[in-house]
Amino acid sequence: MEFSKYFPIWNQLTPEHQSILSHAATLHTAKKGTIIHNGSVECTGLLLVKTGQLRAYSLSAEGREVTLYRLFDRDMCMLSATCMMNSLQVEIVFQAEKDTTLWIIPPDVYKGLMRESGPIAIYTSELMGTRFTEVMWLVEQIMWKSLDKRVAGFLLEETAIENTTKLRITHETIANHLGTHREVITRMLRYFQSEGMVSLSRGTVEITDEAMLAALTDA
Amino acid sequence: MEFSKYFPIWNQLTPEHQSILSHAATLHTAKKGTIIHNGSVECTGLLLVKTGQLRAYSLSAEGREVTLYRLFDRDMCMLSATCMMNSLQVEIVFQAEKDTTLWIIPPDVYKGLMRESGPIAIYTSELMGTRFTEVMWLVEQIMWKSLDKRVAGFLLEETAIENTTKLRITHETIANHLGTHREVITRMLRYFQSEGMVSLSRGTVEITDEAMLAALTDA
Repeated sequence: MEFSKYFPIWNQLTPEHQSILSHAATLHTAKKGTIIHNGSVECTGLLLVKTGQLRAYSLSAEGREVTLYRLFDRDMCMLSATCMMNSLQVEIVFQAEKDTTLWIIPPDVYKGLMRESGPIAIYTSELMGTRFTEVMWLVEQIMWKSLDKRVAGFLLEETAIENTTKLRITHETIANHLGTHREVITRMLRYFQSEGMVSLSRGTVEITDEAMLAALTDA
Repeated sequence: MEFSKYFPIWNQLTPEHQSILSHAATLHTAKKGTIIHNGSVECTGLLLVKTGQLRAYSLSAEGREVTLYRLFDRDMCMLSATCMMNSLQVEIVFQAEKDTTLWIIPPDVYKGLMRESGPIAIYTSELMGTRFTEVMWLVEQIMWKSLDKRVAGFLLEETAIENTTKLRITHETIANHLGTHREVITRMLRYFQSEGMVSLSRGTVEITDEAMLAALTDA
């Protein structure tokens, strides 16, 4: 089954555990924009991305958003299965940023395997470590980096992900990634434009001086 | 050995694993103010607090601080043993906030036990979950809560920890907990004083209206 090519530590599992996992996992498709998991109430299960792109974000009571991290091909995440761990009490929303195909692994099945399989238990700790590292990175960004550096960093990240310097993205979307307001992003982008780093037109931000943006991020 | 009364899942371990752990763990004392682990370079080991209080914080290049979480009696933390996990790349400083007695467990010993013991591997995932939950809480605070609510929440937390409404704490220290500047805290506390919520004197902040502070936090 194809699942075996995507599950990260497949070869470390016993045939029995492989069989349990591959039979329990279900393949889903999600159109761009679909909410796959909505923190507050559900325990969806673990997500394993086959192809596409997911965004994990935190949502305020007022509907503001800030991106926590993204998941790409072969990435796995258990923060949509918080019922699996007593200690995990977080509200994270997962949305498909592109058309996405993904497996969902039921939390009770995975929890059972964690108890029986050393490799799965250790892998799960490593997975928690990955997410912890990403969220700590975000804390450092929010606390210690000024917004101009964060916007510059975000534009460069998008350029790498999309493999183009002409980004089709609205100011509103950038604001939702960075947890700020649209007006603030518009002001910042106009400043970047006046400095020759980007060129703005309706619905697009074109990076015109990548080196200067990179220098700003590092400054 | 006393260690057995403090290690969280002692009764789930085999006698052999109990023996390995208790022989490897070393007991230390740290005077208030001592830096126990300094993120950038060391891999100190896992910390298990016997008595006292530790503060985990993030430090900016400019020397600013923000408190991530605290550890109290019987709390354990592996974020001072990042070498134990490939995926964990974070810079966290641990400081004794009170005179503290703690065990340090060598990372290589613990890593070996994680591979051999299902209960330890699962417990470690739970522990990561606890820290993740705390840091996500901080992200939500920083992103979605205004500073007046955060200062009010911090004062109430200190009141609970110290079991007194008369806190011996400087404005500088509060600023370091919340990741802001002393002047900002001084201005906020003076506003709180003018509203009758606190009474300020040299080196102390006295809570005079706990209910009003709590209402502000929830607002």
